[in-house]
Amino acid sequence: MGQNTDLTAEMPIGVFDSGIGGLTVAREIMRQMPNERIVYFGDTARVPYGSKSSETVTRYSRQIVRFLLEQKVKAIAVACNTASAYALPEIERECPVPVIGVIRPGAKTAVSKTRNGRIGVIGTRATISSGSYKAYIRRIMPEAEVFGQACPLFVPLVEEGLWEDPVTDEIARRYLASLLDREIDTLIMGCTHYPLIRKTIGRAAGENIELINPAYETAMELRRMLGEMSLLAEERQPLGSGEPQYRFYVSDMAGQFRQFANSIIKYGILAAEKIDIYKYSAEPLRTPENH
Amino acid sequence: MGQNTDLTAEMPIGVFDSGIGGLTVAREIMRQMPNERIVYFGDTARVPYGSKSSETVTRYSRQIVRFLLEQKVKAIAVACNTASAYALPEIERECPVPVIGVIRPGAKTAVSKTRNGRIGVIGTRATISSGSYKAYIRRIMPEAEVFGQACPLFVPLVEEGLWEDPVTDEIARRYLASLLDREIDTLIMGCTHYPLIRKTIGRAAGENIELINPAYETAMELRRMLGEMSLLAEERQPLGSGEPQYRFYVSDMAGQFRQFANSIIKYGILAAEKIDIYKYSAEPLRTPENH
Repeated sequence: MGQNTDLTAEMPIGVFDSGIGGLTVAREIMRQMPNERIVYFGDTARVPYGSKSSETVTRYSRQIVRFLLEQKVKAIAVACNTASAYALPEIERECPVPVIGVIRPGAKTAVSKTRNGRIGVIGTRATISSGSYKAYIRRIMPEAEVFGQACPLFVPLVEEGLWEDPVTDEIARRYLASLLDREIDTLIMGCTHYPLIRKTIGRAAGENIELINPAYETAMELRRMLGEMSLLAEERQPLGSGEPQYRFYVSDMAGQFRQFANSIIKYGILAAEKIDIYKYSAEPLRTPENH
Repeated sequence: MGQNTDLTAEMPIGVFDSGIGGLTVAREIMRQMPNERIVYFGDTARVPYGSKSSETVTRYSRQIVRFLLEQKVKAIAVACNTASAYALPEIERECPVPVIGVIRPGAKTAVSKTRNGRIGVIGTRATISSGSYKAYIRRIMPEAEVFGQACPLFVPLVEEGLWEDPVTDEIARRYLASLLDREIDTLIMGCTHYPLIRKTIGRAAGENIELINPAYETAMELRRMLGEMSLLAEERQPLGSGEPQYRFYVSDMAGQFRQFANSIIKYGILAAEKIDIYKYSAEPLRTPENH
């Protein structure tokens, strides 16, 4: 992060995700910091990220960061686990406002909860194969044993609405079987959609395994970070001040956003505006043209 | 299609899809026209198309058509049902080489097979909500009754390898239940992935329902079209002529292409090259700059 003296507590927090799953992170920020304004972006024209490459996800993330900076955000939360796994180092280095991802907070919590040092991680293929959770966990707890399992069907099952369904139970049992064999006592739900099927995952994991939702700890850490920088909004924006407290943008299918968004966030009707993400450069942010 | 006197029988056929499913169409072209060269493009950086908007899918399709024209193809097969449903009219109008989609051939075959005039269509959300199959069927057989059913879980189930699995059977039973209630006697598999779980779909449909694979009829119609234009390759390119008969390109994850491709096409090792699809314009093809 470069130095930036123009940030104020009144500016919104930027949150982005490959799609709508990142609303589970936005929801935690709303709960823990009810005074904050939020600009949310979901990349619905290119969702999902979990089956794509590091290079592609980094390029997409840079375009989104450029859009959020244009919205004058004071900080950016990378709500997407895959983007956090692949693009966070570049974004942190290049971005002139503070950036937080979901993986480090999730890893910290898992370490604080585990008793036997055996931690499972479930996520997209990309998140698991990146090894990011394992790397962060090992940095804090070098003796930890970390076991990853990609669960590519969970996102489509959630998006098809099968949150409580025997099929989702069966798939969860299969995905978790190898982790249970490893005798994990802590399981990180390393994809923004997974907390939505927390009950199903909990049934498959059994009652002795602690489930970690990185969204919760990410909002906590963001709050701590903003507090240290004196960037926490002290009071709620007065009603009638013009701009809504929460603004939602997508790169496609704005009309479809509302239904799913309302199933995650219970703040009444949410409308999203479609923006043209392709007009933002995918090149590194610190180039002569843009700094 | 504009007039174009520069096409020769020796030029390759371009085939594109949102990802790898379109290989089921490429496979039919290989089988039915073994002398033809093929340039295949899979848009793996933005897959899937089935949950995206008409405008976005049309923009993506135009970029791909520009890439294929650069490869000097003599014709383009739009292997993706969603792209055929959303972008075919624009592509046909704008493209200087002949274009064929999968929907019209699939519709024609269904009409020729149905006995009771009650036809089911399964596909992505986008393909079903476009109503394209219904429109083409009604144009040939105005009295036909056409019933659509989106099956969003089929593609992830296929890509997860659950081609023969009780979970896929269960999901297929649920998706097909309403179509069976309508007493269809013909069912169009309106997504390139579906023929890969033909047995599962057949079990759920029962033996009295005829399954239509548009890939087969699309290759037939392409052959007829090329024949009429004297553009059919008469003999196989001599070995050692430099260029391979089949070339595969993707926009991301070239390394992952091989495994899935080999499960569809039994022509031995297939390697794909990654290209930067973003360097091709998404604007309409017939603009002053490019014609």
